[in-house]
Amino acid sequence: MKKERTLEQKFQVSFQFKVLFTHQIFDVDNTILHKLLSENAMNTSKALVVVDSGVKDAHPTLLPAIENYFDNFGKSIALQGDILEIPGGEAAKNDEALIKSILDKVNRFGIDRHSYIIAIGGGAVLDAVGFAAAIAHRGVRHIRIPTTVLSQNDSGIGVKNGINSYGKKNFTGCFASPYAVINDATFLTTLDDRDWRSGIAEAIKVALIMDLDFFEWIETEADALANRNMEVMDELIYRCADLHMQHIRTSGDAFEQGSSRPLDFGHWAAHKLEQLSHFSLRHGEAVAIGIALDSTYSQLKGYLNQPSLYRILNLMTTLGFELHHPELNDQVIQGLEEFREHLGGQLTIMLLNAIGKGFEVHEMDEELVLEAMNYVQQYSAQKIEM
Amino acid sequence: MKKERTLEQKFQVSFQFKVLFTHQIFDVDNTILHKLLSENAMNTSKALVVVDSGVKDAHPTLLPAIENYFDNFGKSIALQGDILEIPGGEAAKNDEALIKSILDKVNRFGIDRHSYIIAIGGGAVLDAVGFAAAIAHRGVRHIRIPTTVLSQNDSGIGVKNGINSYGKKNFTGCFASPYAVINDATFLTTLDDRDWRSGIAEAIKVALIMDLDFFEWIETEADALANRNMEVMDELIYRCADLHMQHIRTSGDAFEQGSSRPLDFGHWAAHKLEQLSHFSLRHGEAVAIGIALDSTYSQLKGYLNQPSLYRILNLMTTLGFELHHPELNDQVIQGLEEFREHLGGQLTIMLLNAIGKGFEVHEMDEELVLEAMNYVQQYSAQKIEM
Ligand SMILES: NC(=O)c1ccc[n+]([C@@H]2O[C@H](COP(=O)([O-])OP(=O)(O)OC[C@H]3O[C@@H](n4cnc5c(N)ncnc54)[C@H](O)[C@@H]3O)[C@@H](O)[C@H]2O)c1
Ligand SMILES: NC(=O)c1ccc[n+]([C@@H]2O[C@H](COP(=O)([O-])OP(=O)(O)OC[C@H]3O[C@@H](n4cnc5c(N)ncnc54)[C@H](O)[C@@H]3O)[C@@H](O)[C@H]2O)c1
Ligand SMILES: [Zn+2]
Ligand SMILES: [Zn+2]
Repeated sequence: MKKERTLEQKFQVSFQFKVLFTHQIFDVDNTILHKLLSENAMNTSKALVVVDSGVKDAHPTLLPAIENYFDNFGKSIALQGDILEIPGGEAAKNDEALIKSILDKVNRFGIDRHSYIIAIGGGAVLDAVGFAAAIAHRGVRHIRIPTTVLSQNDSGIGVKNGINSYGKKNFTGCFASPYAVINDATFLTTLDDRDWRSGIAEAIKVALIMDLDFFEWIETEADALANRNMEVMDELIYRCADLHMQHIRTSGDAFEQGSSRPLDFGHWAAHKLEQLSHFSLRHGEAVAIGIALDSTYSQLKGYLNQPSLYRILNLMTTLGFELHHPELNDQVIQGLEEFREHLGGQLTIMLLNAIGKGFEVHEMDEELVLEAMNYVQQYSAQKIEM
Repeated sequence: MKKERTLEQKFQVSFQFKVLFTHQIFDVDNTILHKLLSENAMNTSKALVVVDSGVKDAHPTLLPAIENYFDNFGKSIALQGDILEIPGGEAAKNDEALIKSILDKVNRFGIDRHSYIIAIGGGAVLDAVGFAAAIAHRGVRHIRIPTTVLSQNDSGIGVKNGINSYGKKNFTGCFASPYAVINDATFLTTLDDRDWRSGIAEAIKVALIMDLDFFEWIETEADALANRNMEVMDELIYRCADLHMQHIRTSGDAFEQGSSRPLDFGHWAAHKLEQLSHFSLRHGEAVAIGIALDSTYSQLKGYLNQPSLYRILNLMTTLGFELHHPELNDQVIQGLEEFREHLGGQLTIMLLNAIGKGFEVHEMDEELVLEAMNYVQQYSAQKIEM
């Protein structure tokens, strides 16, 4: 008789990082980055820097400013080789050779687990560089400097990275915590209007599921946001990042091992719409439509009252979001099944009981989803009076 | 005046898995694997299987047995495509195309985060397949079926994976917990003597730093182990895996974010020796030499008494380990500096106060290391009487 036995393993891993809000990060009087780079036992801290080409183009003095910043601190920090420029947007995630080019530099310059890889760019560039940093030596210190609203208030402060493979978004990637995140508001001045607006959708999302106060503040400041008021945007990003981080901290499932995705309110339809539009829709633009759809569904199903629904739809309209899109049709329904598969068999969708109060359901009435779709379309064609 | 603010993020992620000890895992009466594969909300659980070519060659009925096992359980579990065979040993980790071939199958067969990737093989195959599983969809359920002593009692029950790039061991990889590990003792019968012995070095290592009782048990059973007694090996692996897992669980640093590596007793020299021998030395063979060196150093430095040192050296000799190697020369000393860099600037080395009691130092006396090297060499040439 052979012995059958079992050992049970169970342990916790702690992750910790700071999100620092600043301006003019590469001004030599700004010592935030220098301090972060000096947090090790090395005499000289090595750093690789990777920059989003869109950011570089919009900020022609950025590269010399970075070089000057490193020179200014003498031997304590050392920029390794040339600053690596990679294309901004999905192009950064569609080309595996870019990951290889970062790993090449890690090898060439002897970057180790106590050196730094700094990424400056939008969410796409951060996702790609973050992946390379996570798999080099099983994780090199990775500092993110997000340059879009979405990456400063959502993707950049999270723990996911990834690239697209086989034509599929985020097919390859992993969970990894950044070493630190630095949100420099200066970058946002050069965003085009669509990217400025797009990131606001995630703030509305997190306000709707968690924080009535924040929602009302966004309502108050909606015109200022639409007019690109920087101070208001600063505040929006800070509060939104704070809520996202709170959620990740308290969810008990930061690495998404379970089958609930509360931060994905409005996202089942958004993911499908992004795909149906061949990614001509920005993520935040698709999320706005997804929010409109699931809020309307919540109202039709009797969970959310009508005045609340109008507030939600009106806020998004004031901010300039299109709530309808040619691809918002029956095919979107397939997104429900894809989301269910993604979650591993059981569907879990966040809906609204009230503004600031999300709750989860495990079934969606497809007829009613189609009705909600129709309603959003009529609202957006201004056929519905409020 | 611009506002400078900071948000602090801190959270913990829980990891949990079982290590199941069994025999004849693909016997249709053995339901362990079927149970693991059924732990999701799917009607049919999809699984990819990857096998070490060395294991397949030594077990010619393995592949048909796996296919038969899946067939036997009907629609509840489904093997996806052909069983993928990859070369055993370091070859598995030297060819990036193998990772790609696993990801190709993940894509082709719609493997998602709730499907399974099963790897059957030695530590090298598990490291490579584990890496692919960790980065596909940010982590597909990964079941490890280790087939060597080392992988059953050490590497397979840990949380590291990786492949070799740029000629460097484990250059690319990440930390990821397996979904489950199944140690099937049946595989060990076909190991060659070097691989049988090699894994025993890790058991001696963990006994020396943590558990006098276990060390004395190994002493008692040394002849049985040398004569390939299977029941004794079963027990050795179980106790060694248990100690390793305990250590990982209680270290507070399972993902090695700090700069202490207690489980790497004897490993600074071992890593250098593996490299100097162009990997003609097995990992465990190099670890045995590293243990001899650091135990001798502990004695010369006055931490460990001489009878204890003799017990250690004698045990390894009885088990058939060579404690000297042509590459054990002055160059090994460089391993100290490389280990220091690997730890991020501060050297931390485990030494012995007594058998079963490791402690850490932050400095090594290089003269004394050379003396220890000389001593081990003389001992091994039987110039030292005991
Ligand atoms: N990791 C996560 O948790 C997570 C979460 C949500 C979204 N994402 C990913 O984020 C990506 C979207 O990121 P995004 O919305 O930040 O946009 P983006 O990275 O796609 O960038 C959009 C465009 O703006 C340019 N740009 C960036 N910063 C600029 C600036 N300051 N001035 C002028 N131009 C600038 C870029 O070059 C690019 O052309 C997607 O790939 C999405 O999958 C990741
Ligand atoms: N991930 C970790 O924490 C960790 C820890 C230590 C070592 N490792 C890695 O593990 C690898 C070494 O693993 P290993 O010692 O298990 O050897 P191995 O995987 O290199 O295999 C050695 C040889 O044995 C063959 N083999 C495997 N099982 C067999 C069986 N049952 N019968 C006959 N032949 C069999 C293989 O085909 C191969 O030729 C190294 O790459 C090392 O870096 C990883
Ligand atoms: Zn989003
Ligand atoms: Zn080892």
